[in-house]
Amino acid sequence: MIQRLCLIGVGLIGGSLARALRHRGLVGEIIGIDADPSNLAIAKKQRLVDHVSPSIAAAATGADWVVIATPVGAMPTIFSALRPSWRDDVVYTDTGSTKLDVIAALERIFGAVPANFVPGHPIAGAERSGAVAAHAGLFENRRVILTPLTNTDPHILERVNALWEGIGARVSRMEPRHHDEVLAATSHLPHVLAFVLTAMLGHKDEKQEIFQYAAGGFRDFTRIASSDPRMWLDICLANRQEIVPLIEQYREALRETAELMIDGDADRLLALFSDARAARQRFLDHLEK
Amino acid sequence: MIQRLCLIGVGLIGGSLARALRHRGLVGEIIGIDADPSNLAIAKKQRLVDHVSPSIAAAATGADWVVIATPVGAMPTIFSALRPSWRDDVVYTDTGSTKLDVIAALERIFGAVPANFVPGHPIAGAERSGAVAAHAGLFENRRVILTPLTNTDPHILERVNALWEGIGARVSRMEPRHHDEVLAATSHLPHVLAFVLTAMLGHKDEKQEIFQYAAGGFRDFTRIASSDPRMWLDICLANRQEIVPLIEQYREALRETAELMIDGDADRLLALFSDARAARQRFLDHLEK
Repeated sequence: MIQRLCLIGVGLIGGSLARALRHRGLVGEIIGIDADPSNLAIAKKQRLVDHVSPSIAAAATGADWVVIATPVGAMPTIFSALRPSWRDDVVYTDTGSTKLDVIAALERIFGAVPANFVPGHPIAGAERSGAVAAHAGLFENRRVILTPLTNTDPHILERVNALWEGIGARVSRMEPRHHDEVLAATSHLPHVLAFVLTAMLGHKDEKQEIFQYAAGGFRDFTRIASSDPRMWLDICLANRQEIVPLIEQYREALRETAELMIDGDADRLLALFSDARAARQRFLDHLEK
Repeated sequence: MIQRLCLIGVGLIGGSLARALRHRGLVGEIIGIDADPSNLAIAKKQRLVDHVSPSIAAAATGADWVVIATPVGAMPTIFSALRPSWRDDVVYTDTGSTKLDVIAALERIFGAVPANFVPGHPIAGAERSGAVAAHAGLFENRRVILTPLTNTDPHILERVNALWEGIGARVSRMEPRHHDEVLAATSHLPHVLAFVLTAMLGHKDEKQEIFQYAAGGFRDFTRIASSDPRMWLDICLANRQEIVPLIEQYREALRETAELMIDGDADRLLALFSDARAARQRFLDHLEK
């Protein structure tokens, strides 16, 4: 149970966390802060937060929990703002989409990652963003990855673990580098592919015609291109060491596929498409577990 | 109203057409034929067709309509089989995903495209395939593109148009080449991208781990990779002249995006992602019209 939560970033993730905690009666008071005043006003109006605060230092004062749910690019500044009033008896955690860069920022600012900071990442994106999209069920049955370090306080880690499980999430633990590798493949690369395709076709669609003839398959394929551009900018810059080699690997796979088409190599094309279909079935089987 | 429909290919598209026509009382008798005996048995059992036929020539005998709803690669053989018993008072049409190659096959086999053959394409794919997936509502409010030629009989064209509108579809007409260009961008390229990504990640997923951490965004993005591999083989070979240049253009756009990431060019990356999001919103606006 949280007495007083300082919630830095009240977008889809932060706002949904607030709503889920309230819904389950797991939080007393919530103090919210957000870089976007209009988003913060929505959060206040929808009672996602009880109070808003003009500064990070003021918002954190008296809190027993601090959750940072901003795009990862904003976190270094936030860590610097939190540092003067850092307290050892407070639980600190984040929801950032990448973990190595968050950890590197903590190391830069604190010398080492504080033992009471638990790096975390709920895998629960959506095409909608902002406080307006927040809902209490966002994390139910979703995975949350925690990437504790060797010096992370095990009691603090347990409390963060219990928080996520308390709102229905399934918590895993992972090395930070491995987290960034896995997410680059399953999330970051697909988002880049969808953004690039949709922008390319958008430029082609001068006569407003192409999109008229696109159907449900296209809608699903491009759904993630409606994600928050700022958040994805931060992810792409933070994790480019993992993402860029995957883009190269994918470009090479596309080149080979185009060759097969030019050569009319039906056997290998059919094998490729059948492999893909079988792989997706394995993925669906995982989802149902 | 169709008296006796010869339906060649009773998969998702053919089977759904049969069901929709029956549902609206627009057809008397349906004779089905399919290259896959087990699929045909399902179609018979589910009463999508009244009778099955061992040969195309026999199935077409006495029919006033012939609809070919097979993968496009199978059509040349079907046209050859239909040719000896071709009748001028019968309506012939197809549902093939590409149009130039279907027309080229007709020209090869008949010298010119018969005036009573209307090339068509209902834009209504789905990740499921086969007679088992057929449903009466598949074409409701979906687009159907007809690509008549200068010599196409206008009365026959009107009848095919009326058939599709009769089961709730929105019919457009287009030049065959333009059809293949537009569909390459909105359907064929996205399918290739999804197949290649899913196969690539499937090979990476040796430890059965990556897919565990993929979420809803990945499920939507890869949905089209569950499409029928044989059908997509045919499309990719039939329309490779349009698809391969798009793959190259896309590879180049990916290369530029990777460069922006390496250079840390936040402004241009943000502009790209914002462009994509705006383009997708235009697409969604079209869908709602």
